[in-house]
Amino acid sequence: MDAEQAGPGTIRPGGRTARVRAVVLQAAGHALAENGLAHLDLADVAHRANVGKTTVYRRWGTAASLVADLLVDMAEQSSPRTETGTLIGDLKANARLVQRTLSDRRQGALFKAIIAAATCDDRTAGALRRFYDTRVAEWAPCVHQAIDRGELPALTDAHEVIRAVSAPLYYRLLTGGDPLDTTAADRAAEATAAAARAGAYVRR
Amino acid sequence: MDAEQAGPGTIRPGGRTARVRAVVLQAAGHALAENGLAHLDLADVAHRANVGKTTVYRRWGTAASLVADLLVDMAEQSSPRTETGTLIGDLKANARLVQRTLSDRRQGALFKAIIAAATCDDRTAGALRRFYDTRVAEWAPCVHQAIDRGELPALTDAHEVIRAVSAPLYYRLLTGGDPLDTTAADRAAEATAAAARAGAYVRR
Repeated sequence: MDAEQAGPGTIRPGGRTARVRAVVLQAAGHALAENGLAHLDLADVAHRANVGKTTVYRRWGTAASLVADLLVDMAEQSSPRTETGTLIGDLKANARLVQRTLSDRRQGALFKAIIAAATCDDRTAGALRRFYDTRVAEWAPCVHQAIDRGELPALTDAHEVIRAVSAPLYYRLLTGGDPLDTTAADRAAEATAAAARAGAYVRR
Repeated sequence: MDAEQAGPGTIRPGGRTARVRAVVLQAAGHALAENGLAHLDLADVAHRANVGKTTVYRRWGTAASLVADLLVDMAEQSSPRTETGTLIGDLKANARLVQRTLSDRRQGALFKAIIAAATCDDRTAGALRRFYDTRVAEWAPCVHQAIDRGELPALTDAHEVIRAVSAPLYYRLLTGGDPLDTTAADRAAEATAAAARAGAYVRR
């Protein structure tokens, strides 16, 4: 098997394949943020990354496949969770991380482009769902710890709590004109913590 | 001034202009739900509506203009709020309305297509924002009534409360694979009510 065709799991860290993947995915992210998935062109990405077209076509084949791999990489590269010792501290750290990402010019545009693409492309939708599953699983333990500390009801659905922190921030990004600022992030964390304490996320 | 070119505010209810607008916007909604904004073609919409192409081009001119008018019509046609006498009753009625709309096959596809279009088209983004402003203003009085009844703190931001009910449902529609069911709707209402009672939406 050609190393160039290997899946992400078989890449040697720091090897040529990993370096090629890194520059190609970075170029793909820039191209997507600028022009959206409809105009994502593998030859253009290869040109931006200064990599041979054949390499890009052979390894990723289609724009949807390239975006799916970009989302795998984004999940791998994203920040580990912060542990503050309290539920509200942990949820605020998570909310601030989401808010910083979405309010960043390039990253915000990238997320908008990927979410827009996912509305009409099942493969991108699946890859996006796996990206969020990874991020939610990374942060869910802060809810389990809050349950252990007696801050939350025992049957609180940790994944629902983490998703509830993100939801108002994504809603602002996609439907609103309101600023995605730290006030919005803190409010998302505080509202979720209050609702969780009141038992709104207890599994039924 | 030709009646065909009149803005929505000057249309005689039930007149030919209003009837033409109704059939064209319905056809535009179907076309958008099926194919997205990128493939919205005015000639195709005219054909679906059984209306002359010239009429559609003269009145709306561009796909973005047609979508903007569709959103005006959707806001005009959308259901008035329900008054139940309690905050949780009102928020659940609102959440169920949003959930029914987004989980409807055609309407859900239409919202996805419009939100995707808004990520890369400023005119559509503005029209979408005005649509949500209208819907939020329709429901905001239920928060003011809850404040008057002593259910919520005096300085609660009514618009933020109404947006908080919708956010997790739109987040599911756009990023998740989880079902948009009545359980999700009721949870969105209950979480928002609990957070509002705890003061999370008090203006700062």
